[in-house]
Amino acid sequence: MTWKTELLAKGKLAKSASRELAITSTTLKNNALALMADALVEHAQEIIVGNQKDIENARIAGMKESLIDRLMLDEKRVVDMADGLRKVIELQDPVGEMLTGMKRPNGLEIAKIRVPFGVVGIVYESRPNVTVDAAGLCLKTGNAVILRGGSDAIESNKVIVGILQEAILKAGLPVGTVNLIEVTDREAVREMLQLNEFIDVIIPRGGSGLIQMVLKNSTVPVIETGIGVCHVYIDQEADLAMAEDITINAKTSRPGTCNTIETLLVHRDQATQILPSLLGKLQGLGVEIRGCGRTQSIFPKAIAAAEEDWGTEYLDFILSVCIVDSFEDAVEHITKYGTKHSEAIVTTNYARSERFLREIDAAAVFVNASTRFTDGGEFGFGAEIGISTQKLHARGPMGLPELTSYKYLIRGNGQIR
Amino acid sequence: MTWKTELLAKGKLAKSASRELAITSTTLKNNALALMADALVEHAQEIIVGNQKDIENARIAGMKESLIDRLMLDEKRVVDMADGLRKVIELQDPVGEMLTGMKRPNGLEIAKIRVPFGVVGIVYESRPNVTVDAAGLCLKTGNAVILRGGSDAIESNKVIVGILQEAILKAGLPVGTVNLIEVTDREAVREMLQLNEFIDVIIPRGGSGLIQMVLKNSTVPVIETGIGVCHVYIDQEADLAMAEDITINAKTSRPGTCNTIETLLVHRDQATQILPSLLGKLQGLGVEIRGCGRTQSIFPKAIAAAEEDWGTEYLDFILSVCIVDSFEDAVEHITKYGTKHSEAIVTTNYARSERFLREIDAAAVFVNASTRFTDGGEFGFGAEIGISTQKLHARGPMGLPELTSYKYLIRGNGQIR
Repeated sequence: MTWKTELLAKGKLAKSASRELAITSTTLKNNALALMADALVEHAQEIIVGNQKDIENARIAGMKESLIDRLMLDEKRVVDMADGLRKVIELQDPVGEMLTGMKRPNGLEIAKIRVPFGVVGIVYESRPNVTVDAAGLCLKTGNAVILRGGSDAIESNKVIVGILQEAILKAGLPVGTVNLIEVTDREAVREMLQLNEFIDVIIPRGGSGLIQMVLKNSTVPVIETGIGVCHVYIDQEADLAMAEDITINAKTSRPGTCNTIETLLVHRDQATQILPSLLGKLQGLGVEIRGCGRTQSIFPKAIAAAEEDWGTEYLDFILSVCIVDSFEDAVEHITKYGTKHSEAIVTTNYARSERFLREIDAAAVFVNASTRFTDGGEFGFGAEIGISTQKLHARGPMGLPELTSYKYLIRGNGQIR
Repeated sequence: MTWKTELLAKGKLAKSASRELAITSTTLKNNALALMADALVEHAQEIIVGNQKDIENARIAGMKESLIDRLMLDEKRVVDMADGLRKVIELQDPVGEMLTGMKRPNGLEIAKIRVPFGVVGIVYESRPNVTVDAAGLCLKTGNAVILRGGSDAIESNKVIVGILQEAILKAGLPVGTVNLIEVTDREAVREMLQLNEFIDVIIPRGGSGLIQMVLKNSTVPVIETGIGVCHVYIDQEADLAMAEDITINAKTSRPGTCNTIETLLVHRDQATQILPSLLGKLQGLGVEIRGCGRTQSIFPKAIAAAEEDWGTEYLDFILSVCIVDSFEDAVEHITKYGTKHSEAIVTTNYARSERFLREIDAAAVFVNASTRFTDGGEFGFGAEIGISTQKLHARGPMGLPELTSYKYLIRGNGQIR
């Protein structure tokens, strides 16, 4: 079939499945998740064989080893994916929760109830673990899902989705619960982003290019995720040992994640005291330092930072460092270059800690803690479908409730207006 | 200045104002609203003079009288607009509300706090009252607003926004709190819809054409509002007097509103008993009846409904009527042709009332009450910026809380991950 036919067919399947999923019990959904987890482990070898094809093609195409590592599945990783599904079983099902209720003077009883979105479209890169993760989170929240992973992972994804679908059927749920767009044509993604009739929400997961493409082309509502140009600001009054610990953690504990800092801001009164030791330690850990002029004069081993450095998400062992004259300048810098993801101040001053919390416009604003805590797991959500950097619907880490909408149920006895 | 310059300048003004508004006290915002209301009344004559120019131009352009009526302002309507602002003063300010909070095992204290969106863009038609309404609701929720009204109301809007801005300055708030795009070029709207750097959310208010244009062109997140192809379904077990009252109310009390029904569905076992009397009464009230074949055979004065009737939002004294064989067929019809706005069942059967509430996917689902109650005022919200028909962020009537986002404030004492 042509890709247009495939898209429409899968859109219809998903929409139809979503109507059934919306009224499926938690027990049945959990049962399906358990069968899905079992099936993945049982068919691990098939998955690895499919994955090998992707890896071979990627090597031929000259893919970087770091990306090949993200693509690669072995037995342990398959077991991890299955365990991820089992964890979702334990999470509370948000569907059906009564968010609020009211009885109006005319006797109408209005209940605001959590319901699934319907059909969620996930557009992502060549990471087969996202296939399983997204399928599990969507199923638990009563949503059908249409998956469109990177073309480099297509063989892995086909095998995985085939296995998941078999388990879903065995559980008595419709096969359209989990759908994979198999055509790798780029035009197909653009078409998917306009399937308003069948898709209720699109969530892109991946790098800046992918997210911009989705934002630009989608007429379906999008939840923007995950670009993080995050900062630590060391105030003129700060515990220097704490400032060192937080900065080193926020930069080096996992540089490829969006909640890692890219820029360190330091008040000028602290710079000479803290920078030589802190930047020396960071260099010792393999971090390249790109500094403003004043930083270079204090720490000559820093490379000169260019204007574009301040807005760059390195996702790597690189840190830009800027000395600022005041708290206000730090806030200005963050407002200008930040991506509204995660921002931290290290200070012992109460008034400025409160001002930072109020004035910084970001999903997560920290006082005296590492930005690395912006994470569904760390927030206690149990699971995370991504970190929203937009203000509509969800902001910051998105757990299960963020994969739902609501509706109003109104019970009357003949009221007219 | 060219319109691109105007757009960028106003975008910057709004963004800058939004930072100040986000931390402005409720008292100061309420004071500004009061001054705005006073100023409108005080300058009523200037507004009416500006409005007269719009009316003259509209007459020359041959605008329909019903649209001219929406455009027209007289002293009473100006006073009504001012009163609308005064009502907003009395509403609770949602900004700063703590939505939830948690202390994590590592000692981090996480608070989820309501914050303004930042800058809201409102794209609407030639209704000058929306200018005042939107400005008031956005100000109260700490948002700056960029208004782009229909070109036919440009003279009225210029005068109104000038008056509002003067009052805002007098209150000590930045002039960029309320901004009007004065250029009426259609290209300017498209450009506005891509101003992601300065606008956080776009809310279109108007007819289907306007909303589709916004959805298609906007890269800024959009809250879709207001298209309503709503239904009343009369079940095989129903109180017929109640069914009549609800149907007549849902169709005729204000046919131009989106929560009015366009289609009546009747179970075949009820049709001969209820339709002759009900449809006769509706015709007596001036409603044109367009029926399916079976409806016509019971009520010969009905015109034949065409396929496209079932999906049409008439916003007029027209009702399509379809006899269905079962509850399931009624649900199918609504699923196929409805716009997920407001749907009602009239029934005395408990099981089917509950199934209707569960299975119908709409913002507001009613049992034994008129769809006309889908309204911010009727829900007790005090004010309404529109009725969302999408599932992201807000669904159904949107009050003040729906004009806000949230952020996480995290207080620590040196936590690293």
